[in-house]
Amino acid sequence: MSDRDPSSEPLDEFALIASVKRRVQPAPGVLLGIGDDAAVLAPSEHPQIVACDALVEGVHFKRSWISPEALGRRIVTANVSDFAAMGATPRWALLSFTVPSSTDTAWCYAAHEGVIGGLEEVGAALVGGDTTSTGGPVTLSLTLGGDALWEPLRRSGGQIGDQIWVTGTLGDSALGLRMLKEGGGTSPEQAFVIARHISPEARLDWGLWLGSEGVGRSAADVSDGFLQDLGHIALASGCAAEVQLEDIPLSDAYRALHEGSSAPNLHDLALTGGEDFELVFTAAPDANLPARRGAIPVTRVGRLVSGESGAIRVLNADGSERRVLQAGWRHFRSKVAEDV
Amino acid sequence: MSDRDPSSEPLDEFALIASVKRRVQPAPGVLLGIGDDAAVLAPSEHPQIVACDALVEGVHFKRSWISPEALGRRIVTANVSDFAAMGATPRWALLSFTVPSSTDTAWCYAAHEGVIGGLEEVGAALVGGDTTSTGGPVTLSLTLGGDALWEPLRRSGGQIGDQIWVTGTLGDSALGLRMLKEGGGTSPEQAFVIARHISPEARLDWGLWLGSEGVGRSAADVSDGFLQDLGHIALASGCAAEVQLEDIPLSDAYRALHEGSSAPNLHDLALTGGEDFELVFTAAPDANLPARRGAIPVTRVGRLVSGESGAIRVLNADGSERRVLQAGWRHFRSKVAEDV
Repeated sequence: MSDRDPSSEPLDEFALIASVKRRVQPAPGVLLGIGDDAAVLAPSEHPQIVACDALVEGVHFKRSWISPEALGRRIVTANVSDFAAMGATPRWALLSFTVPSSTDTAWCYAAHEGVIGGLEEVGAALVGGDTTSTGGPVTLSLTLGGDALWEPLRRSGGQIGDQIWVTGTLGDSALGLRMLKEGGGTSPEQAFVIARHISPEARLDWGLWLGSEGVGRSAADVSDGFLQDLGHIALASGCAAEVQLEDIPLSDAYRALHEGSSAPNLHDLALTGGEDFELVFTAAPDANLPARRGAIPVTRVGRLVSGESGAIRVLNADGSERRVLQAGWRHFRSKVAEDV
Repeated sequence: MSDRDPSSEPLDEFALIASVKRRVQPAPGVLLGIGDDAAVLAPSEHPQIVACDALVEGVHFKRSWISPEALGRRIVTANVSDFAAMGATPRWALLSFTVPSSTDTAWCYAAHEGVIGGLEEVGAALVGGDTTSTGGPVTLSLTLGGDALWEPLRRSGGQIGDQIWVTGTLGDSALGLRMLKEGGGTSPEQAFVIARHISPEARLDWGLWLGSEGVGRSAADVSDGFLQDLGHIALASGCAAEVQLEDIPLSDAYRALHEGSSAPNLHDLALTGGEDFELVFTAAPDANLPARRGAIPVTRVGRLVSGESGAIRVLNADGSERRVLQAGWRHFRSKVAEDV
């Protein structure tokens, strides 16, 4: 009702919602967007895909590490990464935005800008949500919905003999997080891994290709840690997996930073660090995969084998076994990586 | 993998998810439920309705007031109430569940039981979500999806001359909250209003009837407070509203408890208290409404009139005006009820 910039006023639920509503572009398929009791979407002839991810201040991020725009984009990336793992196309999203009353108004607007911008980049629209105050940490929970234009990739589709592939490089995000915890870093290598943690990219292009070509038999995104997410595939597919340690794809920055550190094992973070948002997937042994799509390579790292469901054997370069019982992030438990 | 009761073990993300997955019944239309990167739903010929609501400990509830089962049901009710206001049919839900690591495992399982049970009662299934730890308060955010089997009721559909109706009685929930803050209460009247706060019911049956019969022209659920939610309808419909104070439906318990209190105005809480989860809707002057559906009555309380968009005039029994500028709950602001 006024010409004042609402982001310079004290935080107000309805002013924020009204501003976000004005910012969001009309989108095909959205019959009724922000501002009613619920949103209305046009019927689709395709199966519908829905996923939900949350980011909690103090658990997933610190406000001193990440700009509000990057935070908004990051919650979108976490969900789009799930869509990539299904080979599905994002269309719409609902944001549950929970912040302390003392939160800077401009910060809240910028976080929404990040969400809306991140969604626009993948052709999706924010159609509603819930904005609430909290006495605790900032918490963003995003639900993403969209279409399965072809058979969705499932974790359970793997078959014994499948080759295991992974996009991009692993461990950069976890190493970037370690750098942030140690106070940041300004070298090109440090900046690279920190950016991989703060502003990760989802591998939607790869996921859509795997689904549309029927090449992917099973897939998951690497959000909890490579071994754990591969373990989800193996467990769901009723088989075990073998991984060649030296084939795990590492970035030059990751290798350089490891050389300058006291960490004993080069691959530990790459195997167990979370939030890479790469894809791990399996394909038939004779599948024909391009070496890369755009700038993102794909690397064969192992195969599905018979054995205890979900068990993963990691093989050293000399053929000896490095068995990892459990590794990766699980909420409510500390990270466990056990070598036997 | 073991026969131990997981609810007696320390809280573990994957054990909780596995248990919830076992608990959820197969549901028509759910092609892939809990346990993958995303859920897959069968295509529907109807427009899709999606809504999201969050409950934050310390803002919406205290764990000492409400059982985990009731809390789980309450977040479902908040969303189903939005569906009632749209005249839409719930089908599926995603739960973002954020709790401190110290939370009792049995409490978490019971909260999920409440969510799943509440959804089952309206024919909907939990199909996924995200479970995360937090250093702050318990936060539940539920996204509900489903079908618009007929034209959805919108806030913007009201027309000047429409009569304003409200289901059930108003203010019980806010009065129950006040009782809880004052230490509870055991009289039948106190127990009634406390139950209305702790275990509210959504008016889905009314909402579906209004939509299927084409009787409702506009609707909202009373979640932020009657005057505020009616204000949303009036604003979206581009008109003003007139409300007859003596027609506001009050329960016998509400009236009895007011008589025993020092509160000056009988109707204050009924006009501005939130979380009644009744429906406020408008219908043509000649619309034919039953006096009740099941046990839930409906009461005519006013009409839409020409005037400033969103303005509400409350008329006393003697015809004098009691103008209320702003009233009801908005996050980040304290509750304001101003008499002029």
